Parts: sequence; structure tokens; C-alpha cells
Amino acid sequence: MRVTSEQRLDDGVVEREFTLGEIPGILWTPASVPAPLILLGHPGGLRKMYPRLVARARHSAAEGFAAATIELPGSGDRPRSAAAEEARADLRRALEAGEPVDDEIVDRLVLPLVDKAVPEWRAALDSLLSLPEIGGPVGYAGGVIAIGLRLAVVEPRISAALLFAGSFVPRTMFEEARQVTIPLQVLLQWDDEGNDRQLALDLFDAFGSKEKTLHANMGGHTGVPRFEGDAGNRFFARHLK
Amino acid sequence: MRVTSEQRLDDGVVEREFTLGEIPGILWTPASVPAPLILLGHPGGLRKMYPRLVARARHSAAEGFAAATIELPGSGDRPRSAAAEEARADLRRALEAGEPVDDEIVDRLVLPLVDKAVPEWRAALDSLLSLPEIGGPVGYAGGVIAIGLRLAVVEPRISAALLFAGSFVPRTMFEEARQVTIPLQVLLQWDDEGNDRQLALDLFDAFGSKEKTLHANMGGHTGVPRFEGDAGNRFFARHLK
Repeated sequence: MRVTSEQRLDDGVVEREFTLGEIPGILWTPASVPAPLILLGHPGGLRKMYPRLVARARHSAAEGFAAATIELPGSGDRPRSAAAEEARADLRRALEAGEPVDDEIVDRLVLPLVDKAVPEWRAALDSLLSLPEIGGPVGYAGGVIAIGLRLAVVEPRISAALLFAGSFVPRTMFEEARQVTIPLQVLLQWDDEGNDRQLALDLFDAFGSKEKTLHANMGGHTGVPRFEGDAGNRFFARHLK
Repeated sequence: MRVTSEQRLDDGVVEREFTLGEIPGILWTPASVPAPLILLGHPGGLRKMYPRLVARARHSAAEGFAAATIELPGSGDRPRSAAAEEARADLRRALEAGEPVDDEIVDRLVLPLVDKAVPEWRAALDSLLSLPEIGGPVGYAGGVIAIGLRLAVVEPRISAALLFAGSFVPRTMFEEARQVTIPLQVLLQWDDEGNDRQLALDLFDAFGSKEKTLHANMGGHTGVPRFEGDAGNRFFARHLK
């Protein structure tokens, strides 16, 4: 892990850009360290996502959490995969035509992404947990929900997850969902037209966790209400402190 | 409204039992008054429900809210209605036989209850709002959800409602749900076997409110997690203060 830039934001949060091999990432640490870490999931494209990610990181830092994220495979400046680009184009065509999205397209798009991204997040976790600023349990917050789901199953260092039910999940991963046992908070935008609400409810039902909470709100795909940021902080304060 | 007893609880909350004509009720006021008021809904039977009601009232008082409740028609020491008792027996038979509950039974049980209870809650509100200890906007919290729903439609003094989706709602009231416009937080116990989950989700979908949030949790019918008490306080703090 190589730090490529460092700056102190006006609220005392230290922001470090880093690279992990070819993968760019960002780490935010609060004024008081060592701090428990929240991994910030996102749909890919760190530069485009930066304003929302830094806002989420600062909100978490106000509650005493560090936050970190890495670029997804095939997004931002990372090399594209021809197969993923083709699946993405097929998905876009189906959505634009108003057709139901074929399970086969979702499998082609999401499964290779999960298979590639999850080991990268785990490698990032190895590096991040070796830093003196990071201590205590780890949480995962955000989309891509299939990545969070797989991480919750395979990565024992993740103690709680706040998942955004706003993207496609391969049907084959419902079996994995039953293996999840960590506390979960699942966010669902009820009136998100690009999202399959019934699939999100079925997935929430499938999770094996004894403590799982669904928060459904209005406001469309990107309109998660501000108060959910506070609710997320309280969820992690219950489980990471 | 006639106060029949008054005591100060150890956290400084003043508890007053009262009667409103033949209807018994309880009012809890916090140390600092005047305070906004939360009406506490419940399934009927004040004496049996008292431990849970006083716990909810004290939790609300800690956030600066007064709370009040009245006995439901046909519950506690109030006179029974033969028709309601018959509908309740029919419901019990259907549930014990594991049969789906007929809409006709729900209508016979719930509609007359709503028709009778709602004017009583509104009369209680008239009396409560005339007290110097009560000031500011009013919220409704709890079941019976059909009573909260009707109150949200017909009573303009209620500014926000936290509804427990744990009881039957007549299908004919879905049209009323579309007329609800106040902010809502709906609690659903996901694994409540005595509750029709799909009906609760359909009802949440039907509510006309632009701000509506669904909180689904595990823990069975009476197992609402403690943290939902805090979430309820924050919901009302956003809308009643």
C-alpha cells in the first residue's frame, strides 16, 4: 500500500489517496485514532463517486470511524474487461427497452465482478489493518450489494454490514445470503424504478442473520434521506464499538 | 376530563390517570413543559398493556415529549360489544385452524372499532390540548394500525405517525391509506407469524405520504428491538419540534 497524497480536511479528517498494486483507493481517518474501520462500497468510478464518498466518510468520522474505499475492477482508470462491458451493454439495452432483465445477464455482469473485487477488498483490509490509525472491528457500508454479501460470508474480520439494495444480485447468491450471520442493516429505496423491489425484499428475507433490519424510504435511486446517515452511524456504533 | 390519580415517577415524569366520560386514560408529562404530545396506540387492555406503555412514555419523556393513551372500545373495563366478541372469536378460530383470515371477519372486527375509537381519540385530543402542560404538534405512535391510519386522514392536528404494522387492516381502508400525507414511520416485525407480511408491505406501498419509512426487524410479534425506541424518538424529534 503506497500513499500517493495526503491532506487534512477542515473538520480534522485526514484523507490519504493510496494505491494497492494497480488499484487506487482512499483512506479517511478521524481526529482520534486508532479508530474502527468502515469499508465504503460504491458502484465503481472513484472520481465520479468522490463527492458522495467523502461526505459519507466525514459523517462516519464525526462518529469516530475511519473509512476506506478502493476502485472496482473495470471502473475508473482500471482496465476494462470485454465480457463485463458486453454484459453491461446487454443490461442497458434491456433496461432501455423496458424489458425484464434476464438472470443470465445479471450472472455475466455481477458474478465475475464479485469474484474479482472481493479478494481485492480483502487484500486492502490486510494493508489497512496494519496501519497504526486503524483498530477494532470492521464494517462494510454501501453497494454493490453482491460484493457486500460475499464479503459478509467469506471475511470474518467484517462484523456488521449496511447494504444498499440498489443493484442486481444473481439468484445463485441467495444461497450465500443464507450463510450471512453478522448484523445487517439493509437500505431500500422503495420507489427506485431501476431496482427490482421484490428481489430486494426476497434477498432481505434470505439473509441468515438473527439481527437484520430493513430501512425502506422514498426519494428514488439516489435519494436516500439524510437521516439514514445518522441511522447508519448508530448501527455501526452498536456493533463496532 | 377528570384526573383520578397523580404520581411523580422516579425520572420526574408525572403520571396522571384520568377519565373522559366513561373512558379511562393515562397522561405522562416530562419534567419540562409545555411539551409536544404523542398519542400512544395499543391493542386494548390498558391494565395489561401498562408496563409496555409506561416504558414507551418514559422513553418519549426523555426526549421531551408528553404521552397519552385511552382505553379502546370493548377492552379493559369498558362494555363489550356482542358483534365484536363474535368477530374476535371467528378470527381466533381461523388463526387456530391455520386458515387464511377472511376479509369479511377483518371488516366485522376492525371497521366498527375504528369508527368508534377514532372520535374518542379526537375527543381526548381536545381535552389534552387544553392542558397548559401540552403544546405544539401531535404525533400518534403504535397500533392498532387501522386506528392510526384513520386518525392520520381525519385529524389535522396529528403531524406525524409511527405505526406498528402488526394487526389486520380491512382492504377497504387501502383507499384511505392513499389519502395519508403526513410523515410516517412504519414498524414491521418481519418474522411475526400472526401477521400478514405481504399485506403490511402493500399497505406501506399504498400510503400517500411523500416521506414514509419502513423499518422491518426480526424478533417476532412482541420483539421490536430496543433501538427502535430511539429511532422513534428521532423520527418525532424531526417532525414535532
